[in-house]
Formats: sequence, structure tokens, C-alpha cells
Amino acid sequence: MSATSSLTEDYALAHEAAILRDLVEFAAIPSVSTDPAFAGDVRRAAEWVAARLRRAGMEAVALHETGGHPVVMAEWRHAPGAPTVLIYGHYDVQPADPVEKWRSPAFAPQVREDRLYARGVSDDKGPVLTAFAVAEAFMATAGRLPLNVVFLIEGEEEMGSAHLEAFVAAHPAELAADFVLSADGAMWRADLPSVTIASRGICTVEATLHGAAKDLHSGRHGGSAPNALAGMARLVASLHDGAGRVAVAGFYDAVVRPPADALAGIAFDEAAYLAEIGAAGPGGEDGLALLARQWSEPTLEPNGMWGGYTGAGTKTVIPAEAHVKLSCRLVPGQDPRRIQQAIATHLRAHCPPAFRLDVELPDHVAEPYAIRADHPGLTVAEDVLAEVLGRRPVRVRMGATIPVAEAFQRVLGLDTVFFSFSTTDEDYHAPNEFFRLSSLRTGLRAWVRCWERLGRLRAGGFTH
Amino acid sequence: MSATSSLTEDYALAHEAAILRDLVEFAAIPSVSTDPAFAGDVRRAAEWVAARLRRAGMEAVALHETGGHPVVMAEWRHAPGAPTVLIYGHYDVQPADPVEKWRSPAFAPQVREDRLYARGVSDDKGPVLTAFAVAEAFMATAGRLPLNVVFLIEGEEEMGSAHLEAFVAAHPAELAADFVLSADGAMWRADLPSVTIASRGICTVEATLHGAAKDLHSGRHGGSAPNALAGMARLVASLHDGAGRVAVAGFYDAVVRPPADALAGIAFDEAAYLAEIGAAGPGGEDGLALLARQWSEPTLEPNGMWGGYTGAGTKTVIPAEAHVKLSCRLVPGQDPRRIQQAIATHLRAHCPPAFRLDVELPDHVAEPYAIRADHPGLTVAEDVLAEVLGRRPVRVRMGATIPVAEAFQRVLGLDTVFFSFSTTDEDYHAPNEFFRLSSLRTGLRAWVRCWERLGRLRAGGFTH
Repeated sequence: MSATSSLTEDYALAHEAAILRDLVEFAAIPSVSTDPAFAGDVRRAAEWVAARLRRAGMEAVALHETGGHPVVMAEWRHAPGAPTVLIYGHYDVQPADPVEKWRSPAFAPQVREDRLYARGVSDDKGPVLTAFAVAEAFMATAGRLPLNVVFLIEGEEEMGSAHLEAFVAAHPAELAADFVLSADGAMWRADLPSVTIASRGICTVEATLHGAAKDLHSGRHGGSAPNALAGMARLVASLHDGAGRVAVAGFYDAVVRPPADALAGIAFDEAAYLAEIGAAGPGGEDGLALLARQWSEPTLEPNGMWGGYTGAGTKTVIPAEAHVKLSCRLVPGQDPRRIQQAIATHLRAHCPPAFRLDVELPDHVAEPYAIRADHPGLTVAEDVLAEVLGRRPVRVRMGATIPVAEAFQRVLGLDTVFFSFSTTDEDYHAPNEFFRLSSLRTGLRAWVRCWERLGRLRAGGFTH
Repeated sequence: MSATSSLTEDYALAHEAAILRDLVEFAAIPSVSTDPAFAGDVRRAAEWVAARLRRAGMEAVALHETGGHPVVMAEWRHAPGAPTVLIYGHYDVQPADPVEKWRSPAFAPQVREDRLYARGVSDDKGPVLTAFAVAEAFMATAGRLPLNVVFLIEGEEEMGSAHLEAFVAAHPAELAADFVLSADGAMWRADLPSVTIASRGICTVEATLHGAAKDLHSGRHGGSAPNALAGMARLVASLHDGAGRVAVAGFYDAVVRPPADALAGIAFDEAAYLAEIGAAGPGGEDGLALLARQWSEPTLEPNGMWGGYTGAGTKTVIPAEAHVKLSCRLVPGQDPRRIQQAIATHLRAHCPPAFRLDVELPDHVAEPYAIRADHPGLTVAEDVLAEVLGRRPVRVRMGATIPVAEAFQRVLGLDTVFFSFSTTDEDYHAPNEFFRLSSLRTGLRAWVRCWERLGRLRAGGFTH
């Protein structure tokens, strides 16, 4: 098998330029799932994925409708006795806002200094395309894959994968597998190999505060009319205490924290971190290690807030309305729906009598996730990373959310091994997102070896 | 004189349709002074005013450059011995935002139910045009005016009249007069005749809070990176205490309040007021009468606040920046520049160490104003209003700012009598601004009679 492996790896690396051309084409499609204006582009991206999987020699390639954006599925199941991995990824991307901060347009991919810049190249078009290219490399060099695979590439990850759970629940036979190998879930650092063993959950809350029925003149009415922005500022400020701890009643009640030594041996330079993000000081709760704040503490944060006059110059209005978009990152023990309710209860309780409050609890929820420590797929991933990157990876928790990992575990009973070669410094969800071409090369090698090694294991024994 | 008066009044009223056509034409010019995109339209409005004053028979009509938008001046000084009034008004208007809330486009004036709807018709194109039309009516019917006038119509009132004071200071001879008769300064209520004897001052402050150098992923960085919106909410909330009183050190130090009986005999139904503005409760400081909060208490309010993602759906960013536009309404004793500084000092003192704060102190300032109680021009105005409206007007203070009144008093030593027939319920500074056509008719009659009565007085004796 090692001759085949080498041949396949060589083939994949020799085709880097073609794979990059594919990625440029893929990233040029503005598949912004959260904004209805881009619905046609999202579908175009799904069709691009299907065509690419067909070209790779995959079977049963199809778009499946979900009530939202389509899921692309494909499979190759001709390795009897070998394990079956469910390859997960997504073809949708975050909005490009603020567009004026991009050095090159978000959807006109550009290579600069061995990096490809475009919205979605790191999260997660580069990583998913790596898996497609590796499947093609195996088919081209060996006429077969060393294991069974089923691809599930969704189009709603950036909006909370609202329809995925129902889709997964409705397709247990097509999705039958030993575990999930996720092309999504960026590696912790560019300079330190790691595997992710947990991720935070998420829930969101939107609120609008109404003062008067319409915007009022701040001279005529100033002092006697309620100012919705002033009220909203107090309301948002009430969500945390002076030490940065979330002040919502019940928020921390069910939190299960990792063992006390979870961070032992993981070097983290707090000053360097703050310098890297360009901040004068940290967020979160005073007195806790920053890594604990990122990995094992829940958060509650405003992601957007607006009201009144925001144009050039002055407009002395008393705003009738103020808006806020809040989201939480959740840790084991926290139930997203209960946290949403606790926040709604807090907002209502703290809404001053002069105002009327509308609270919306979007379906954008996901539970926190953790894989069992002795999962064989996790071990293979760690061995391959040690081989390819020359250093045993550290086990890290992930601040971000991959809701599907929780859904796969709960609905299908499958654990998820995160095997992405994007890294968290690549400005995904921000302007000037990029993907390192070196990561593309490393990813191709690692995916080839991972499938080879997994192909030597037997099916079964992966689940709890 | 009473025959002339009647003739002139009849002439003016007989020309209502033509005056309305003029107003429609004037209001169709989007002279939004605060937004540089409208600079051409602002100048077009100035030229429209000059042409209209020429047609009325005024002399020395000219646009005067100011470093900002031009001032339009005109005069008629052929009534020796009679007083000279300086007619003040402005041809600029507020922005039309939020444009989607207008029932008919802001700059496509539309008559509905004896009201003209358009941005600026009430504040203050309708009232200034009334004065132009009355000048024309005197010239057409008597070939002369009963007193001396000088018109000063500016284009920067809605942005704080930044260049007017310097302009006034540079033109003392051209502006020589006994007092100022202002076509700006809406009447307090539609159903109660009133004269305004004081107005609040203004100052503004803009602030930007910077957290990280760029927007960050709320999963990856949530808990460890500072959230600029959360910081801004705390900062804005810190500006008031729990009772709604401004918490900025020194804010109230120099405040001079009116006599304890200033509100005696002025009926004000607080519940009806709140119902009228559509609010569940009041703003301002707990425990004070709402009229005192509007008239004699200073305010500090956010007029606009924004940051992060404000589009459709969810974008889980940690915003790098948050912005706020603040403004104060100031009462006698408060110095606008000192209050600006006190707010800046407060913001800096309350800025948490994780953030960097930029504070901007715009030139948009004006001192509070009050006219002396026995001013002869004020008496004439009160007498005319009693005659035309059938009821003696009450003396009210004005929550809003007319910075020029303070400037005329300080620079030229002239008091200002507010003589506008727009009313404060006409949604100026808000969507669907309108001007009552009945107010146009009343205004025409009142301006004719006011000039007649003033013409019977002798020049001198108006100043302190």
C-alpha cells in the first residue's frame, strides 16, 4: 500500500496548479448563505461542488433539497471490510462586510505571497476542495479509494446549519459510517500542529427596543422623550458585571468545566496574543487565563448594534428604535435554547418602563461538542499529523462552533474528527480572508495518508 | 395705515395659491446642508431664495460666501425713523433619513388634507417664504414697506450655523438693526398661541471605541478579545445614573434655573404628551415635571450609535470598532465648549483599559439664549398673535436650539423675537415633515400686521 500512497501523494502534489485553479473558480462564487440576495449564487456553488465530485469519480452525486440551501452528497463504497468515513464540509461563506476593508475584492480571488485571498478560501472552500482532490488522486492512480467514503457538503454552516439535523435524521442509510472526518474546523495555530477535541455551542438573540413611535427632534423633546439608544446601551451593559462575567441569571448554572490540568503544557503567550489581534487588553472575565476564556468559558457578546443617525455630520434625533444582535458561545452543560430563554428573561426584566422590547430567538443554535479521548480515528489523525508536520499535535478545544459535530453525535451516534488545514489566523469571518498554499500542499499529503491508514483498520469499533 | 394693512393682507391671502406653488418649488430642492453630497443643491436653494427676494422688490440681494454654504442677504431701508428689523431664517434642511418611512418622497412635495408634506417645509422653508411673500405684498400694494428690513437667510442652521457668527461679526454695518425677527423657531403647540422667550444651547461629541485591530471571529476569539460594542454600551450607559440624571462630572455645576413659578399656569398633560409621541414612559430625570425636563434641564443623548454586523441574518463577529454620536441641549449658565470637554473627560476616564478611544469635539456648538421680558418687539409680536389667533399667547421656553439668537445677542447686541408659524408637531427632523396651509394663511396675516405695528414705533429703545 505504501507504493500506492506515495504515487497518489505525488499525483496530488503534481496537480497543485490545477487544484488552485479550481479553488479560484470555487471561491469566485459569492455563496453567502445568510443573505437572501445571494440565494442563486449559493445554489451555483452547490452545483460546482457536485460537478467537482463527479469529476473526482465519486458516485451517487446529487443535490438534496432541505427547505434551505441544498446539501451535496456523493459516495464511493467499494472497499468492503474497510471503515466508512463521512466527509463533512460546507460550500457556503460568511458575508464580505465590511467590503471597503478588503485589499482585493472578496469574490475576485487573488494570490499574494503564497496565499490565496478571497472570502471562504480558508472557511472552508480550500479545505473541502483538498478532500475532493485527494479522492480524484486515488481514483486516478489506483482506480479505487482505500476506504469507503460518503461526502456531505452543506450550504448553511455559516447560518447555523438550520436544516442539516433534519436532513441527517432523514438519511441514516445513505449516511451510515464509522465516524465523521471534517474538512471544516481550522487548526489552532499556523505554527503548532493540533487536533481539536471539543467545540463551543452557539445561540443567538436579537432585540429591538422601542421608545417613541417615531424619531423625534432632540431639542423639542430632549429630556422628556425616551431615547431608545440610551436605553439599549443600558440594556446591553447590564448583560455583564464589572468584572466581565455574564450577569444573566442561570447562565453559568449547568456549566461543566474541563479537568483542572486541561491547559497544562499548552504554551500560550497572552501578551503575544493581544499584540497579534492588535488589542490593548483582553475581553472576557477578569482573572481567568485567556485560553480558558476562549476554550472553556461561555460568552455573550453583541455582534451588531445600531440605531439613530449614522451618516455624515450631525442629525439631532432622539431615535425611536435601537437594535442589537447578540450571540453566545456555549460550553458543555449549557443548553442553547435555555440560554436563549435566560437572556430573553434578563432583557425583559431589565427593560426600563419607558420602552417596549421585542426579543427574537433565532433557530441558529448548536450544542457544545466533545469527542472521546481514545477514538481510533482521532489517533490516526494525530499519527498522520505527526508524520506530515514533524511534530505530535496537541489536543485543543475550539472556541468556535461546528454545530454538525453535535448533531452527528446526537442523531447518528458518530464522533467527528476535525481534519482541516486552514488555521485560525487566516481572517475567516473578517476582511482579507486567505488560505495558505502551503496548507493546501500539506493538506493533500495528510488526507492521502489519513485515508491510507484508515483503510488498514477494520470497520466497526469507532463509536462509543 | 389700517387701510393699507387690510389691502396688503388681502393681497397676500389672495395670492396663497401662487405662494404655495413657490413653496413646492423651494421644498423640492434637497438642500441638506450636513451631507456634502448635497452641496450643489444647497447652493441652488440659496439662488432660489435670492431670486425670490429680488422678485419681492428687495434691494442689495446677494449670495455671500462664508467658507461653508452661502448666506443670502437683501434689504429695504427706505422708512427713515421707523425701526429696522433683521429677518432671520434658513434655507437648508435636515437629512431625509430614514427615507423608507416617508409616505411620499421627502423632496417631492405633496399636499394632503390642507398640509404640504416635504422635508424642510415646516423647518423652515414655509415660514421664511411667508416673510418674502409679505414683503412682496407690501411692495405691490403700497410700493413700500412700513419699516426697514434686512434679510439674512443662511444655509447652515441644520449643521450648527458654524460660519454664521463670523459672518455676522464681519458685517455689522449691513446688519445694523433694532432687533431680529426670526422666521425660524416653531410655535410650541398647534392649538395654543405662544411666544418663545428662551432656547437651549447645543454641543455635540463623537466617539469611536477601538478594540482589536480588525473584526474577529466570535468563536475563535470570543472571551479573550475585547468587544468594542460591549465596551461602547458600558461607556454610553455610564453617561447617566439610574435616575436618568447626567453622570458627567461638572455637567450641572453652572446651571441657572428659571424662577420657581416659570411653569405656573402652563397646562401640560404629561399622559397626553406621552400618548402623542407614542412612548410608554418619559425620558430624562426621574421626579421632574416633563415640561421642566424639556425647557430648563440640560440633556445628553446618543443620536446615533453603530458597530458590527447590521445586515440580515447572523454574522458572529467581535466588532473592532463602535461609534456614537452624542449631543447635549444646554441651559443658561452652561458653556458648550466646557461641556464638550467634560464629556470627553468622562469618556476617557470611563474607557476600559482594553480599548482605545477617539473623541471628536465638532464645532457644532451654540449657547443657550433668553430675551429680556419687556422687549418692545416681543410685545408687538404678542399683541399681533392675540389679534390674529384670538387668544393672548403664553410665553414658553424652547427645548430646541437657535444658535443664531445667541450669536446675534452676543455679537450685535440684538435680541431675537421668534415669529414662526410652524408648530412643533409637524415632524421636522423626522419622516413625513409637513406644514399646515392654515399656518401659511395665519402667518401671512400676522407678518403683515406685525410690520404695520412695528412701523408705528420709533427706531431705538429695543436693545438692553
